[in-house]
Amino acid sequence: MKKPQNCIIVIFGASGDLTKRKLVPAIFDLYKQDMLPEKFAVLGTSSSKFTDEEFRGNMKRAVEKSIIDCTGDQLSGFLDKLNYISLDFTNAEGYSEIAEKLKVLDNTCDSNCNYIFYLATLPSLFETVIANLGKASLNKSKTGYRRIVIEKPFGYDLDSARLINKSIHKVFKEEQIYRIDHYLGKETVQNVLVTRFSNGIFEPIWNRNYIHHVEITSAEQIGIENRGVYYDKTGALRDMVQSHLLRLAALVAMEPPSSFDSDAVRNEQIKVLQSLRHISESEVETSVIRGQYLSSTIKGESIKGYREEEGVAPDSKTETYAAIKFYIDNWRWGGVPFYIRSGKRLPTRVTEAVIHFKKTPHYLFKQTSGGNNENQLIIRIQPDEGIILKIGMKEPGSGFNVKSVNMDFHYKDLSDIRLPEAYERLLYDC
Amino acid sequence: MKKPQNCIIVIFGASGDLTKRKLVPAIFDLYKQDMLPEKFAVLGTSSSKFTDEEFRGNMKRAVEKSIIDCTGDQLSGFLDKLNYISLDFTNAEGYSEIAEKLKVLDNTCDSNCNYIFYLATLPSLFETVIANLGKASLNKSKTGYRRIVIEKPFGYDLDSARLINKSIHKVFKEEQIYRIDHYLGKETVQNVLVTRFSNGIFEPIWNRNYIHHVEITSAEQIGIENRGVYYDKTGALRDMVQSHLLRLAALVAMEPPSSFDSDAVRNEQIKVLQSLRHISESEVETSVIRGQYLSSTIKGESIKGYREEEGVAPDSKTETYAAIKFYIDNWRWGGVPFYIRSGKRLPTRVTEAVIHFKKTPHYLFKQTSGGNNENQLIIRIQPDEGIILKIGMKEPGSGFNVKSVNMDFHYKDLSDIRLPEAYERLLYDC
Repeated sequence: MKKPQNCIIVIFGASGDLTKRKLVPAIFDLYKQDMLPEKFAVLGTSSSKFTDEEFRGNMKRAVEKSIIDCTGDQLSGFLDKLNYISLDFTNAEGYSEIAEKLKVLDNTCDSNCNYIFYLATLPSLFETVIANLGKASLNKSKTGYRRIVIEKPFGYDLDSARLINKSIHKVFKEEQIYRIDHYLGKETVQNVLVTRFSNGIFEPIWNRNYIHHVEITSAEQIGIENRGVYYDKTGALRDMVQSHLLRLAALVAMEPPSSFDSDAVRNEQIKVLQSLRHISESEVETSVIRGQYLSSTIKGESIKGYREEEGVAPDSKTETYAAIKFYIDNWRWGGVPFYIRSGKRLPTRVTEAVIHFKKTPHYLFKQTSGGNNENQLIIRIQPDEGIILKIGMKEPGSGFNVKSVNMDFHYKDLSDIRLPEAYERLLYDC
Repeated sequence: MKKPQNCIIVIFGASGDLTKRKLVPAIFDLYKQDMLPEKFAVLGTSSSKFTDEEFRGNMKRAVEKSIIDCTGDQLSGFLDKLNYISLDFTNAEGYSEIAEKLKVLDNTCDSNCNYIFYLATLPSLFETVIANLGKASLNKSKTGYRRIVIEKPFGYDLDSARLINKSIHKVFKEEQIYRIDHYLGKETVQNVLVTRFSNGIFEPIWNRNYIHHVEITSAEQIGIENRGVYYDKTGALRDMVQSHLLRLAALVAMEPPSSFDSDAVRNEQIKVLQSLRHISESEVETSVIRGQYLSSTIKGESIKGYREEEGVAPDSKTETYAAIKFYIDNWRWGGVPFYIRSGKRLPTRVTEAVIHFKKTPHYLFKQTSGGNNENQLIIRIQPDEGIILKIGMKEPGSGFNVKSVNMDFHYKDLSDIRLPEAYERLLYDC
């Protein structure tokens, strides 16, 4: 594998949850696999006051918590690459300190001024940080590249999304901007396309003639954890439905692209989104459900209700559960309902797309498993990534009773191949 | 489960291989599961001179060899039901002894003269035994039923098959005759119909538009064992191809029947057989292969060639391997080649039908597994009965390489359900 050019990764929001749980462990994992540049550095920054050593100590614990096998040498070699500066993101002058520090690191790691700015902050700070990066002239370089990575949400609604886009474009050019969705970095999400378009047997039955409905579910057992401030401004519809799950629906519903280049794939997905039937105000009541989790006792542990969570308004109307029924008005999907459901504090943890096929037009056999023998193709994103096909088979013994059984493939059965974490793949691609 | 009426099973050819390896173990297994009548008896007969005790001793060893778990009490209770008379099948007078013995057994097991005659003899003796049963008036009864069970081959060619049928019908009425094929008694063979017609997803792609070719294979590692006399008159084409495997092809190729009664199913199969394209004399060379196994050394063991086997003529032209390419000339299968292969002393033991689907009309992804990513549906009859679907999936990691993987269902995974042996099911049904 070709090594990337030397570079420095700057993480804004380096004391936060995302950095600890995902980013730094992912960078370390790339380091362990020798997939990082020959020379590189990580510069963390946030409002917290840490020394380099304190930051390294925090990250050491974070990595040890996330990565199962690593030697002490590997880890300490990696930690040496980490640096920290505290910064008030709203203070434009402060960014010159970042610029200074970057110059020093440039020398130690021959980075040719290649910087990746990863915004792991609250989304409300995106515009501020980006504007200040511009003011400090960190948005361009004569020699190296400057890239900015932001994660959804891109705004709160259409107007604010457009505003954010405009602000970013004042500072960075489109090709410098990496808008990432870690969901789309997951193996199984990417596999939806391969499953559909590398197999001749699915496409002929992948339409309104054979599919009864499509169900996309993301259920979580956890609550909002310590993300109350963020979540209460967001809710399930914005956090999951309009982003990850609608995109998953687009992958399931899109036409085969003519090639696999990113424009061709994106264009087919956009066509699906453009074909979504508008839900009129009067239909909202019958097509959409929103809910909040209440306090309860689960396995003896008493669990806070959503409105009692830290950072959540006591009269919050933000939904922690959302379900939508919608239609894609095109030739392939006319009349096939799609269901998207997402929620927190649900009894099980699963993310999956289920294609429910129509039943046979004529029943020849006695159905013994609840009389219901529709075929289902389940594309499981997590946990236990894989694909399951529910089919009817003969129940062993006399007679011809039909039993529903699973044919399955689990990614983990490819035990010789390691499944990269979504953030790892995305950081590497960036 | 309703118990069958009391009856007596008469086995002609009771010293033979089939009786030892299959019939008596199957009857014992039914006994163990309490699926036999309240009262029953088995009467074995052949030219060998055995006492009842000697016969029971032989069968005890046969059952112990076949059935894994049984208690001594169960087995000795079962062996008490076994009886033996030696008989020269060609001697018509001898059958009166059978009739006498049956009268005695009638009294002990209230069988109301219900007799099942199972012809486990050489096929060349079928007509003789049946004629003699008629002469001894064992073919009919005022009170009970008289049934005759014969297994293929039903003659050597069309003329001889018609002759045999005629001879049988002189003695037994059609509804008394059970022509059985133990292959069709296997779970997975019966499951072909359920797989095809209880699932909505297969039928739409089960035709010339999506299927490239169909392959039906029965490979055996063993040679002809001690069946030389029988086999040399038969050969692979008669033994396997025209019987079991062509029937399996008919199950794969038939149209959905309107109902599952035996006439409707048989009629659809006959339509397939009637649609077979005639292979003209000039095409035989390119459409059919016949072969014989030669002597060899396998894993240090020296193995006889076919012509050196006992009972085989040293200049025999009987084939132990046969392969045919043929077409089914109807709307569904026009232009799709079917391949049937069968042989002995092959490197592996497997019986399966493989549906090879066409490749995708457009390649979007790099194929990493030999460049070949056709989908296959494998219906495995033995060993490891089950269904496998070969599909392309994304190879984990960066990029979009496609790897061929298996989604599978194994009958043995239904561990709570015991797979009945084919003979068991057929005997029970009879």
